[in-house]
Amino acid sequence: MTPMDTAPSGAGLVAALDVGGTKIAGALVDADGRVVLRARRPTPAAEDGATVMAAAAEVLGDLRDLPLWAAVQAVGIGSAGPVDRAAGSVSPVNIPGWRGYPLRERVRDLAGGLPVQLIGDGAAVAAAEHWVGAARNSSHALCMVVSTGVGGGLVLGGRVRPGRTGNAGHIGHISVDLDGDPCPCGGRGCVEGLARGPAIARRARENGWRPEPGGEGSAAEVAAAARDGHPAAVAAFARAGRALAAAIAAVAALVEIEVAVVGGGVAEAGEVLFAPLRRSLPEYATLAFTRGLRVVPALTGPDAGLIGAAAAALGRVDG
Amino acid sequence: MTPMDTAPSGAGLVAALDVGGTKIAGALVDADGRVVLRARRPTPAAEDGATVMAAAAEVLGDLRDLPLWAAVQAVGIGSAGPVDRAAGSVSPVNIPGWRGYPLRERVRDLAGGLPVQLIGDGAAVAAAEHWVGAARNSSHALCMVVSTGVGGGLVLGGRVRPGRTGNAGHIGHISVDLDGDPCPCGGRGCVEGLARGPAIARRARENGWRPEPGGEGSAAEVAAAARDGHPAAVAAFARAGRALAAAIAAVAALVEIEVAVVGGGVAEAGEVLFAPLRRSLPEYATLAFTRGLRVVPALTGPDAGLIGAAAAALGRVDG
Repeated sequence: MTPMDTAPSGAGLVAALDVGGTKIAGALVDADGRVVLRARRPTPAAEDGATVMAAAAEVLGDLRDLPLWAAVQAVGIGSAGPVDRAAGSVSPVNIPGWRGYPLRERVRDLAGGLPVQLIGDGAAVAAAEHWVGAARNSSHALCMVVSTGVGGGLVLGGRVRPGRTGNAGHIGHISVDLDGDPCPCGGRGCVEGLARGPAIARRARENGWRPEPGGEGSAAEVAAAARDGHPAAVAAFARAGRALAAAIAAVAALVEIEVAVVGGGVAEAGEVLFAPLRRSLPEYATLAFTRGLRVVPALTGPDAGLIGAAAAALGRVDG
Repeated sequence: MTPMDTAPSGAGLVAALDVGGTKIAGALVDADGRVVLRARRPTPAAEDGATVMAAAAEVLGDLRDLPLWAAVQAVGIGSAGPVDRAAGSVSPVNIPGWRGYPLRERVRDLAGGLPVQLIGDGAAVAAAEHWVGAARNSSHALCMVVSTGVGGGLVLGGRVRPGRTGNAGHIGHISVDLDGDPCPCGGRGCVEGLARGPAIARRARENGWRPEPGGEGSAAEVAAAARDGHPAAVAAFARAGRALAAAIAAVAALVEIEVAVVGGGVAEAGEVLFAPLRRSLPEYATLAFTRGLRVVPALTGPDAGLIGAAAAALGRVDG
């Protein structure tokens, strides 16, 4: 529990759950998209489905124990995907105990009959950035996370569009290299395989970079090396930036976004990633209606999932 | 003018214009999407803008001279792109005399004050297939043309979605090979460069195929050779099918289409194209929500542009 400095009125709160492979976070969020109070548990991702649900229930229990719970109007869930919005179920790749798991119904049972909305984590990021982040003033945006994985969601015509089943904007598994390396998803040349943190670290090592003594060889360490001008580190980020540029340009050609918002751990490298990404963009975004495409850093940080889930609870996501 | 066998009632007709780089077609279309009467002129694509407009005006004039014109309620235009729906202007790549050309206003002046809708040719194909074609029962579809060029349009949530400027679904210029060959658009590894008719013909020749005496070396001839089992011809279509599969799977990951409708001259090769395309699809459409993706031939044929323009006139396209 981390109370904020601001004094919430208690009016119009929603509860948010952000379900990922490593943690389950919960929060009460106010009508302006501010996180008021938090709870969290590690995700027992290797356990059976009931054990994972028990952890989620504890997070919800922490929130329900708060006096402010009385002001909660609705609950929103953002979950690692794939999700199935129509069924209200989730099958997160990194939580094998949940396959077609009826998460929306289980949360409804625990939430005392409040309305419950479920979206995928990509749509949640888009909802957060569109509500209070870098896509706030845009009606046509891709909002994405580049981290251990690569995901995203879409804002089109001024609304977050989670798509038919809730997974739209899944940019991590489009192929930008049709003859490229196999991806664990079964595909080939996926954006995720070229731009996720571990891929950047691996490529840097292949090119001759080595971590400092005691280092783990993470993408963050590669970013630091790139900042110091290490050619193999610079090249690894250039490759990731190029793959992201091709993919973002494809999204622009297909659905006419005007801005791509990029967050997540790898994006925290800042200009080390954004500079090559922006440099490569004109090589792929060549059409009259894609040439003005902008790429900007995300603003909602690690709270994106919670804020996006709250946005869904407030009806800010297409039905 | 080609009168049809059916006897149109004259009630609820619209006029349609289909503007392409080689011809400008016009038609009266009834409320069931049937072409009732036609007109056409070659596009004087190498001439100045006023000369091109004069050809369009002649087509419209032919339609206005018909007694049935009195029943026309609205006019729809489908134009080679890029278009700018907000401005009502067009800048077709293959008609250099038109750059930001105010086509909607010019047609309005000639159409006696009838309302005029303008969409891009990709959206027109989607509108036609969604109205009376293979996407008729689908709410989430990509409809595309594979011909000298490659283009497309999107149906999402039951509506044709032309996007912010009218060019959404432009699948021909997404990159599926980020280090691939340069494309005249300025990009690299574009789907069009891998799957358009001339690319298939070139690849077949590179692999050793030769046209019959008197042949032109067209993709249709390569298709005939592939049907006879010529390995170079088979391989050329396999490559195109593979590129299309990667691109169609990308669209499915991004906007959750459930079907891709493929038309155009190259698609007329039938199974020669569709078989390898469908064989490659599972290599790219690997996600839970993309695995069920179907690929089917278009049904509206060369009338797609006219029928789609008519659909726009009838308000069947998102505003």
